[in-house]
Amino acid sequence: MAKKIIVIGSGAAGMTAASAARAKDIGAEITVFTEEEHISYSPCAIPFVLEGRIKDFPSIIMHDPEFYRRERNITVSTRTKVVSADADKHTVTLADGETLSYDSLVLATGGTVFVPPIAGIDLPGVFRVRYIKDGMDIQAMLPTVRSVVVAGAGVIGLEIAVALRHAGKEVTVVEMFPQIIPRICDQDVAKEVQSYCEGLGIKFCMGTPLGSICGEDKVEKVVVGKEDIPCDMVIMATGVRANLELPNILGLEIGPLGAVRTSPTLQPYKKGRLVKDIYLAGDVVMCQSAAVPGPTMSQLGATAVRQGRVAGINAAGGRALFPEVLSAWISQIGDLQVGGTGLSQGLADYYGLDVVEAKAEGLTRARYYPGGMRLTVKLIAERESHRLVGGQMVAGEGVTGRVNWLTAAILKGTTVEEFVTSFENAYCPPTSMVKDVVNVAAEKLLERL
Amino acid sequence: MAKKIIVIGSGAAGMTAASAARAKDIGAEITVFTEEEHISYSPCAIPFVLEGRIKDFPSIIMHDPEFYRRERNITVSTRTKVVSADADKHTVTLADGETLSYDSLVLATGGTVFVPPIAGIDLPGVFRVRYIKDGMDIQAMLPTVRSVVVAGAGVIGLEIAVALRHAGKEVTVVEMFPQIIPRICDQDVAKEVQSYCEGLGIKFCMGTPLGSICGEDKVEKVVVGKEDIPCDMVIMATGVRANLELPNILGLEIGPLGAVRTSPTLQPYKKGRLVKDIYLAGDVVMCQSAAVPGPTMSQLGATAVRQGRVAGINAAGGRALFPEVLSAWISQIGDLQVGGTGLSQGLADYYGLDVVEAKAEGLTRARYYPGGMRLTVKLIAERESHRLVGGQMVAGEGVTGRVNWLTAAILKGTTVEEFVTSFENAYCPPTSMVKDVVNVAAEKLLERL
Repeated sequence: MAKKIIVIGSGAAGMTAASAARAKDIGAEITVFTEEEHISYSPCAIPFVLEGRIKDFPSIIMHDPEFYRRERNITVSTRTKVVSADADKHTVTLADGETLSYDSLVLATGGTVFVPPIAGIDLPGVFRVRYIKDGMDIQAMLPTVRSVVVAGAGVIGLEIAVALRHAGKEVTVVEMFPQIIPRICDQDVAKEVQSYCEGLGIKFCMGTPLGSICGEDKVEKVVVGKEDIPCDMVIMATGVRANLELPNILGLEIGPLGAVRTSPTLQPYKKGRLVKDIYLAGDVVMCQSAAVPGPTMSQLGATAVRQGRVAGINAAGGRALFPEVLSAWISQIGDLQVGGTGLSQGLADYYGLDVVEAKAEGLTRARYYPGGMRLTVKLIAERESHRLVGGQMVAGEGVTGRVNWLTAAILKGTTVEEFVTSFENAYCPPTSMVKDVVNVAAEKLLERL
Repeated sequence: MAKKIIVIGSGAAGMTAASAARAKDIGAEITVFTEEEHISYSPCAIPFVLEGRIKDFPSIIMHDPEFYRRERNITVSTRTKVVSADADKHTVTLADGETLSYDSLVLATGGTVFVPPIAGIDLPGVFRVRYIKDGMDIQAMLPTVRSVVVAGAGVIGLEIAVALRHAGKEVTVVEMFPQIIPRICDQDVAKEVQSYCEGLGIKFCMGTPLGSICGEDKVEKVVVGKEDIPCDMVIMATGVRANLELPNILGLEIGPLGAVRTSPTLQPYKKGRLVKDIYLAGDVVMCQSAAVPGPTMSQLGATAVRQGRVAGINAAGGRALFPEVLSAWISQIGDLQVGGTGLSQGLADYYGLDVVEAKAEGLTRARYYPGGMRLTVKLIAERESHRLVGGQMVAGEGVTGRVNWLTAAILKGTTVEEFVTSFENAYCPPTSMVKDVVNVAAEKLLERL
């Protein structure tokens, strides 16, 4: 009899899991339930639609339910909420009361924007950026907007801030931490990005959280500490929290970082025991760090896809493992790219790791080659073992490849000595300096160990 | 007493060795001898000056002798030929008969373009592309040139062909092998690059070597097999051979690939024994492969710089090792980038390695993000061990970072399984697909193992 696989969630994790399960088991009966209307789009693309770099919202939707039915024999049931699940009975229950049985269940319920419980949070004109619908709503209101406050200076907040600034709005970013891109970025690198944003005319209000949002029938201003900032729109980019409604109903163990603890097979635990036939993927999962033993969150599109693959294969009866992660990340902020991998200084402190850092500056191309852009590379190594554990980079181009390069080195336990001695750079004047800035940073780091 | 360090050669290897020696020993007496007039320029940049992408030849000269004297207390003696050397006496002799003693000697004598002994090779209008002077001479003659034959379809030959085509010349590339970029590139990837060049109007004459060059007082045509190709200029891009004049005088052991065999300290051998106080760097060195046990050539600017660093440190009394290499390479051919690392199928055959390959195609950015370019990635793994051993890529952008990423994986002995499971990609719609094409190629390769 065909195996019944139910996937809850239609984001990158859920849809990848469904497709991976199909690839593994041609005969399975695969159903995806999602509360959303649109599926299979990239939330990471929303800021770039608002900025006008991407034509419109329909373009970022890769496939519709009909595609999955036709091409992969996967049933996608949109606008359908799964309200309950039972791991012992192997069932899920929909909002209309219907109960369905599963052989394997994939929970890819994602996360939602954390919204602090402050006054005025429900006023018209307050948005979050998570679903494509959010982007469409923001875009629809934009023509009447003069001034925007973005709460949260993580990469999504900054991408949105730049997008709206490019659209001619007055933009103020409010961040409770004293630096932008907190945690994953160190202050020196963050400063470089902030200066760029300020150069675009974006204002920053740092070190104080958003206190309240005020207005009669709609947003008129926000209060931050003792300051009033008039605005017509507020965008909450205050971080993502795992959706734990179903995991809680199922009694799954929640890890210390507020997401579901899983085994390398991406199975959850219940009262200390592995739960059979349930697999998780995406923002709902707590991961393990590859830079240092310990838990970490990795709420990234690329992680969701990699977890979706593992969950889907396992749900279909195969065997795949999800390993420790470095959470390599990259953000395009206007014409600047900033990215990183592994531990920042701040995260190293959090994990109690004694680290040494070095920074190098150079260009993305040979010095004399036109179009080369300034490139800053910061590398971080564990003091005792000399193992590379993290890095951050800022440049106008070429950051992604360098981040992946460094990620590979860290994943494989490369020491600074080894990087300096063995790690080659493919050189051509239009695409790098003869000694890449990453290599130069490694040499500088070696001098400090 | 100050240590006397003599460096022969002022290319990337020689000048890096001199600088590295100075960084290690502040008091040493460091002298560089070179036959050239200009030093410290990138030969790799010559095609891009001819193409007009780089303003002029002076721009590609990074430093002059005065800079080295002033900033690094290094004496550079230009237009000075070292005609002899004696390892036992620790001396070198200049063309004018002067004999100088050294404590350490760095041989960075480079390579020269291999020119086949064919008729007409000395006719006016025949050039090679090696020294900046070659580039200047070609540029000076270009206004009177209508039609050019480039002999050799390696990356330098192709870069030159594209440059001259962009300058409005009729260009024919003659290659004795049946494919372009032989050895380091496989036929399928080479085909993609050739099609691109043909699209620019470049003609190819494959599988037959240049037979002769004909003309009265200057080049008028070349003969290739039975075909006559009329032309006013011939550019020999027929590969680089190590300059063995001094190594032969010194009695150094020459390896099977026609360059000097060295230890990991970059010291040469003489009658089976390591030679004291002599270090080599650059195109004159035979390397060991990091993809498979065995010798390899790595005549790349980036390799020269890495070897120069090791030779300079050791010459100054320090201790550094030069490891096995993958020879990561990249070439900008018009608006196309092609690069690779480690073994091609052809090289794997040469080494007797049984390999499996897979190829994936995709884009350099998210599908909906404007400006994304077609990206082809080919990966090669050893069949028995599943170790990645090589790869090649073609795209309009972003090849260098991906080549370095793959190079890191191969250097660290990564299996295909491990790459698929653990190797993360930093994702943002403007800079990659959510699953990068390299990751997709690895998944395809896994299916074939």
